[in-house]
Amino acid sequence: MSKHKEARASEIERLVRRAATSSGVITLGGGLPAESQFPRSALAASFLRVVTRHNPSALQYGWAEGLAPLREWIARRLRARGASVSADDVIVTNGAQQAIAIAADLLVRPGQAIAVEPETYPAALDLFRARRLKVVSLGHGRASYVLPLVGNPGGRPLSSEARAAVARGSSPIIEDDAYGELRFISKAPPLFLAERRSRTFYVGTLSKTLCPGLRVGWLIPPASRRKGALRLKASGDLQANSLTQAVAEDYLARTDYDERLSQLRRFYGARAERLAAAVHRWLPGWRFQYPEGGFSLWLTTDAHVDEARFLKAAIAEGVSFDVGSMFEAQPSTANTDQPTRLRLCFSFVRAQDLATGVRRLATAWNRVARSARSKRRRPEGRRGEQG
Amino acid sequence: MSKHKEARASEIERLVRRAATSSGVITLGGGLPAESQFPRSALAASFLRVVTRHNPSALQYGWAEGLAPLREWIARRLRARGASVSADDVIVTNGAQQAIAIAADLLVRPGQAIAVEPETYPAALDLFRARRLKVVSLGHGRASYVLPLVGNPGGRPLSSEARAAVARGSSPIIEDDAYGELRFISKAPPLFLAERRSRTFYVGTLSKTLCPGLRVGWLIPPASRRKGALRLKASGDLQANSLTQAVAEDYLARTDYDERLSQLRRFYGARAERLAAAVHRWLPGWRFQYPEGGFSLWLTTDAHVDEARFLKAAIAEGVSFDVGSMFEAQPSTANTDQPTRLRLCFSFVRAQDLATGVRRLATAWNRVARSARSKRRRPEGRRGEQG
Repeated sequence: MSKHKEARASEIERLVRRAATSSGVITLGGGLPAESQFPRSALAASFLRVVTRHNPSALQYGWAEGLAPLREWIARRLRARGASVSADDVIVTNGAQQAIAIAADLLVRPGQAIAVEPETYPAALDLFRARRLKVVSLGHGRASYVLPLVGNPGGRPLSSEARAAVARGSSPIIEDDAYGELRFISKAPPLFLAERRSRTFYVGTLSKTLCPGLRVGWLIPPASRRKGALRLKASGDLQANSLTQAVAEDYLARTDYDERLSQLRRFYGARAERLAAAVHRWLPGWRFQYPEGGFSLWLTTDAHVDEARFLKAAIAEGVSFDVGSMFEAQPSTANTDQPTRLRLCFSFVRAQDLATGVRRLATAWNRVARSARSKRRRPEGRRGEQG
Repeated sequence: MSKHKEARASEIERLVRRAATSSGVITLGGGLPAESQFPRSALAASFLRVVTRHNPSALQYGWAEGLAPLREWIARRLRARGASVSADDVIVTNGAQQAIAIAADLLVRPGQAIAVEPETYPAALDLFRARRLKVVSLGHGRASYVLPLVGNPGGRPLSSEARAAVARGSSPIIEDDAYGELRFISKAPPLFLAERRSRTFYVGTLSKTLCPGLRVGWLIPPASRRKGALRLKASGDLQANSLTQAVAEDYLARTDYDERLSQLRRFYGARAERLAAAVHRWLPGWRFQYPEGGFSLWLTTDAHVDEARFLKAAIAEGVSFDVGSMFEAQPSTANTDQPTRLRLCFSFVRAQDLATGVRRLATAWNRVARSARSKRRRPEGRRGEQG
């Protein structure tokens, strides 16, 4: 990262951290699940059961691959989705991020290339950059990293062209299915895990559908790569959390998970509608594709404004968001011809705060966009009129 | 690893796993803490408090560096031990292993050398080998990895020569203090963190003193390396477990931790005495140095026997142990002139099983050692007479 980019990244992080601790700020960034949907009392009951259980003890060390009944639950659900998976294929990880990291470490060496969508999950980009991988577009690279069913930030499936580019050839696929079961629309493309088992590294998690604090994710590597993946897991941090694996396993054994998913889909689907309506009303010049699932909208504004400046103005109005450059494989923020982009999450804040948040965002936007336009001292075009 | 070594390593793993699930086998291997010492009800009470707490939510995502009050507790305890540390210096990790991995990844590139004690923590050796580092002796290498206060497997502090070799020069020190507060003898050498702050990567954990299932460890890098360390943590798996950090923090805030440590020292000290006495009685030809802390004895037998064969015989008698090659920086198991070595843990099994375990071990040993000696068909020397 250049000095300038680094300084801006730190400034943005500082702003986001400050906003997170200000009670007056409506958080439309962050990609956090709704805390109202955490099954607190059921998890507490599970905890009380497992903490008093002695064999295997939830407080003791466990095996690197994770708890057997939890792996069986994971495998069973994937079999129901058409994939040929057994419990022995599953490695439990500290959330999806560690699963992505293990797959990337196995597949791509520093200096080599990994292919991603034009906009993708920021922590995966951070990981690839921290490992000094080259980030390239789909169809190239030693391996591809994709969110095929529900993308992040846009909440849309991989386009058929992008799918074809990934499916073609023989390079490994890291399939991040974090939001895959949170589609508002039931029709879903098949999993790469089902169609391309021998070259798919499947990544799953309970973070979006249960809660992130448990840090329970999983990696399903091709059978030929299981040993190498498990060695990276074991040498990296021995094992996933014994206690929260046991809590999750106990909870899942007593829960109708499909019913829970239906309920979550309705919940987040209604939130998506509400946020979309607020954007249409308060920021009619902004464009987005309606999401098919997930937690967020990916928006293109109607002017170019420095995103740190916009974020600062937004926080001053009492709202925060995720700056677009976080998601861009090839950040284009310096390109003043390209309108500023951003992610807005409908998942975390209370439903009644969504419209207020967008209204505040519009106030901040109208101020910074107007001043950006007047600074550029040139006739304003169509986009300007819409602002 | 050679094909042969790999095959033997898998055989040993298979034996250990089978033994772990056989209720009749007394486990003198593994390095696990005593489950009787886990504060189950206090942890359950802490869980119930934190799971219902909303801000910050223990079920939600958290910051990469970990929970602030937990980091403050860690820093305070280290200040009391003479180190200049603030909460901002601390990065909470998934147990000590991840802290070691982050430090190693920052300091030593594949192909470069890391210096270790002749016998050391097996998972650190696994990590260094998985990362393709060269493992060399202290005084050499790009960085040193040491357990200065209480070694593993031997439970003894670093010798003064070894300490001097590490302290000399300017290369970074990874100081693994996992057992540092579990010394039976109160007089302890100072921490490298206190004496060599600017080049020490300090590694701590709650796994030995509270319980491993929480997966709460920490890394304190030199101030100049904090940013790089935090980036590896964040990109590797985002953050340590929100829930178990919150449980640990709540528990620690209500616990007299020094009193807990005194109690644990008495408990494990008495176990050490019991195991040492049993070895003296049943295997008088074996040698070991009395431990000053930790969970185990490091023993040298009185003959060379293939360790997998010995382990198999031991499990058949109803006892398991840790084979010596796991701990050796330069495994010497093929050297038939060197007596077989092993680790025995006094930490995990019930006190009354220690003597029985050693008696069974002696039965197995006497059988395999006698047959090994007769196979070699040569006059037996002094060592043979002791068996």
